[in-house]
Amino acid sequence: MPDPVFQRLTLIGLGLIGSSVARAARDSGAAAEIIACDASAEVLARVTDLGIADRVEDDPARAVLGADCVMLCAPVGALAEIAATIALNLAPGAVLTDVGSTKLSVIRDVGPLVPAGVHFVPGHPLAGTEFSGPDAGFSTLFEGRWTLVVPPAGTNAQAVDKVAALWRRFGAMVEVMEPAHHDRVLAMVSHLPHLIAFTICGTADDLEDESRREVLQFAASGFRDFTRIAASDPTMWRDIFLNNREALLEMLARFTEDAQAMARAIRWGDAAYIEDKVMRGRKIRRSLIDLNQA
Amino acid sequence: MPDPVFQRLTLIGLGLIGSSVARAARDSGAAAEIIACDASAEVLARVTDLGIADRVEDDPARAVLGADCVMLCAPVGALAEIAATIALNLAPGAVLTDVGSTKLSVIRDVGPLVPAGVHFVPGHPLAGTEFSGPDAGFSTLFEGRWTLVVPPAGTNAQAVDKVAALWRRFGAMVEVMEPAHHDRVLAMVSHLPHLIAFTICGTADDLEDESRREVLQFAASGFRDFTRIAASDPTMWRDIFLNNREALLEMLARFTEDAQAMARAIRWGDAAYIEDKVMRGRKIRRSLIDLNQA
Repeated sequence: MPDPVFQRLTLIGLGLIGSSVARAARDSGAAAEIIACDASAEVLARVTDLGIADRVEDDPARAVLGADCVMLCAPVGALAEIAATIALNLAPGAVLTDVGSTKLSVIRDVGPLVPAGVHFVPGHPLAGTEFSGPDAGFSTLFEGRWTLVVPPAGTNAQAVDKVAALWRRFGAMVEVMEPAHHDRVLAMVSHLPHLIAFTICGTADDLEDESRREVLQFAASGFRDFTRIAASDPTMWRDIFLNNREALLEMLARFTEDAQAMARAIRWGDAAYIEDKVMRGRKIRRSLIDLNQA
Repeated sequence: MPDPVFQRLTLIGLGLIGSSVARAARDSGAAAEIIACDASAEVLARVTDLGIADRVEDDPARAVLGADCVMLCAPVGALAEIAATIALNLAPGAVLTDVGSTKLSVIRDVGPLVPAGVHFVPGHPLAGTEFSGPDAGFSTLFEGRWTLVVPPAGTNAQAVDKVAALWRRFGAMVEVMEPAHHDRVLAMVSHLPHLIAFTICGTADDLEDESRREVLQFAASGFRDFTRIAASDPTMWRDIFLNNREALLEMLARFTEDAQAMARAIRWGDAAYIEDKVMRGRKIRRSLIDLNQA
């Protein structure tokens, strides 16, 4: 096996992503030692039973001692508090990274707390499933998927390279992206679709009792696929929506304008307009298949 | 094999659904003879090559001669013209049915053309894939899925039973539903999700070039799942949107109100509201899994 990228990797938050990183780090030999820390005693007990870390710690300040890489895998709304707790214990020269879906907010919340000599390199693996918790993770989750590395201007280039190297060892493809741009792209490809999926579930749930029962009974493809998207972790998504507010609201506004234009075409029987929009959906699906992203 | 439900089944339209019915009818022995008719010579040539019908016919008026069941499997916008062409050639006592996703419009368009003594029993199998055309069909498409039988008031009960029996022979679960109610339920579970999926593909396609490229490159789950929904047949969906106008516009209006409420909660940082909506999405997903519809 090639040399480890890091000697001691501390993971804070052992949900789907954190526990997958633990497994991938061990299987790939990317970290010589893996320390797991989580706010939940239940989660830490599962991590111990699963045997996916070398050591578990309930105190983040202690968990980061001596680590040359600390990866925050908690919901983005919790990162400021965690960063404040661990900041003074981070080893000089260590790399601090995260896996959050919003990057401007993480840079805003965590950046100012990082001591001089510690390198803060935000990251975001575009991988996941509809399940959550340490049992849901698996070591191949990142294989063939993109991980975006999103350093603020002026970040140490060697630290960026090491974080990229870590994700590549997990089988991920890596691209470095500018933070504001990351948040706009993710608002479109992930945050808006999730907002829509959660919303339509509520719209269906508000129907009068008879129709509501039948919506569930006869869930055709379409609604059924939306509910799968809507099954993800609530705290994580609440935090994402609140922390990518501007980009998400802009994308929602664009979508709403387009949906209204579609409604108008349906009301006035504009068959050509509708057909054009439907054709574009197919074309985009085709592009995704060509890009191996479907 | 049990006795056939019909002696001669004529299918008009051999796309995904029609060609699956042809295969299922043969495999289940539900029809003694299967006649295939399609407006496209190319489709009929494929049907001949695939060997999924006993005879192909390009003229619908001739195709229905002597059939005790005629099933219209063309897009709902084409059914009125087909019905006018075949009406006078339908055998006395024959059952005329369809598979369209909108039922009030089919009853409005086809109903008045059906001669006395012919039994018109609209139907709707809740089954499909993202693919279309005669090669996309398969005989098990309807197994374990619902088919809704949607007769107008006063329809001959024996004819309704025979259509239900046909779908049960294909492995489908059957429920009889009132037409207006059908259109509202389907607007919610299928038509609105498809409208949203087509729309969001257009919204993404309208982004400035750099972001648009990256939306495709980094299509995370969410957007990727929406494009799968959006890959369905354009003519079929144009016709569905135009023919379930009132119910679809109402469901879209409800959804839009809910999306605006979510936007407001995000803008003002109402974490409890957002979390509640996200939890409802999970709850509905859980109900679907319990109902074996996920």
